Amino acid sequence: MHKTIDSDRLNQQIAFITAIDALKEIIRRTSIVSGSRLENTAEHSWHAAMSAVILQEYAEEPVDVFRVAQMLLVHDIVEILAGDTFIYDTENGATQETRERSAADQLFGMLPTDQAILFRQLWDEFESLETPESRFGKSIDRLMPLLLNYANGGISWKENGINDRMVATVNARIKPGSTLLWEYADLLRLQSVEKGFLDSHLGDD
Amino acid sequence: MHKTIDSDRLNQQIAFITAIDALKEIIRRTSIVSGSRLENTAEHSWHAAMSAVILQEYAEEPVDVFRVAQMLLVHDIVEILAGDTFIYDTENGATQETRERSAADQLFGMLPTDQAILFRQLWDEFESLETPESRFGKSIDRLMPLLLNYANGGISWKENGINDRMVATVNARIKPGSTLLWEYADLLRLQSVEKGFLDSHLGDD
Repeated sequence: MHKTIDSDRLNQQIAFITAIDALKEIIRRTSIVSGSRLENTAEHSWHAAMSAVILQEYAEEPVDVFRVAQMLLVHDIVEILAGDTFIYDTENGATQETRERSAADQLFGMLPTDQAILFRQLWDEFESLETPESRFGKSIDRLMPLLLNYANGGISWKENGINDRMVATVNARIKPGSTLLWEYADLLRLQSVEKGFLDSHLGDD
Repeated sequence: MHKTIDSDRLNQQIAFITAIDALKEIIRRTSIVSGSRLENTAEHSWHAAMSAVILQEYAEEPVDVFRVAQMLLVHDIVEILAGDTFIYDTENGATQETRERSAADQLFGMLPTDQAILFRQLWDEFESLETPESRFGKSIDRLMPLLLNYANGGISWKENGINDRMVATVNARIKPGSTLLWEYADLLRLQSVEKGFLDSHLGDD
């Protein structure tokens, strides 16, 4: 089977692939497990997609795991233009949606129209939390920084003044997509306080 | 639907997810597009899985794209224990297979048995090149460093004394999985020589 090439189409696809390389330079607030440096969004997206495949059995409802994995591969691409918004940052959180929608228009718009529509739908679906796939994807996305912080002794929690009550609030977003992973996450939160990785809010009172 | 948790099983899965974080610290020979630093294997795996989804229409034979994406997500995990072997490194290339098989036993063996078997099968299949999925996955894996080098002006080619004949040899491995992407890659190789990103082997004679 030898097809002829639509070089305009392929050029658009390659231009998109080249442009999203910039996600490797978007720095998150969480340190990698070794603690040697902060994580970037491209490697976070890899880790999240892998974790969704491994943890699929814990999804609250049956999911199309490929759709979840694709969402996790693309979910943060808008950060190339809109920047990373820390999950505990309520100020920039307010303008986040507008900035990210405009970034999605621009980035996915680089692709051939059919693919631009498909990827934009994936991204919108992830943000909507209206499907079992988006809810489970969000559970995984929220679980990852907890796993990394637990493994590296809470580097990012300490540097950013995060306490157990704030972690509990963010952990709650794991529950709609996976009650089991939320219960596990809450156990890690308690253990993190016990081990001195995470401050208790009780100390603030 | 509320299941009870098999905590041994989940602990094994989380231990594996935590262990593979180390892939973020395995450094490849290729610079990212901006040229600011070398690429690591975790972000390469993300970029390759994304590219497989985007370029699936160019696969030589019909493929299960989710299987291709999963292979690309896991294909380099063994580098955590076996290290990255540069595609132009024939010396370490000889011992690469033994080192990587032993690493695969150890790493995938961290997972619950059913998943250890599934992931090991995925990894073995990718290495075998015996299926349309593994061949297309390999095409994407080989295409990525070419795209990055083309985009950053051939940084890794220059630093490692790679010429156009060596690139042509590596590019040839793109062909079994995708004749069209191989033709495109060969065009990029010629343009790279024209633009001064890549040395011509003719200068060596």
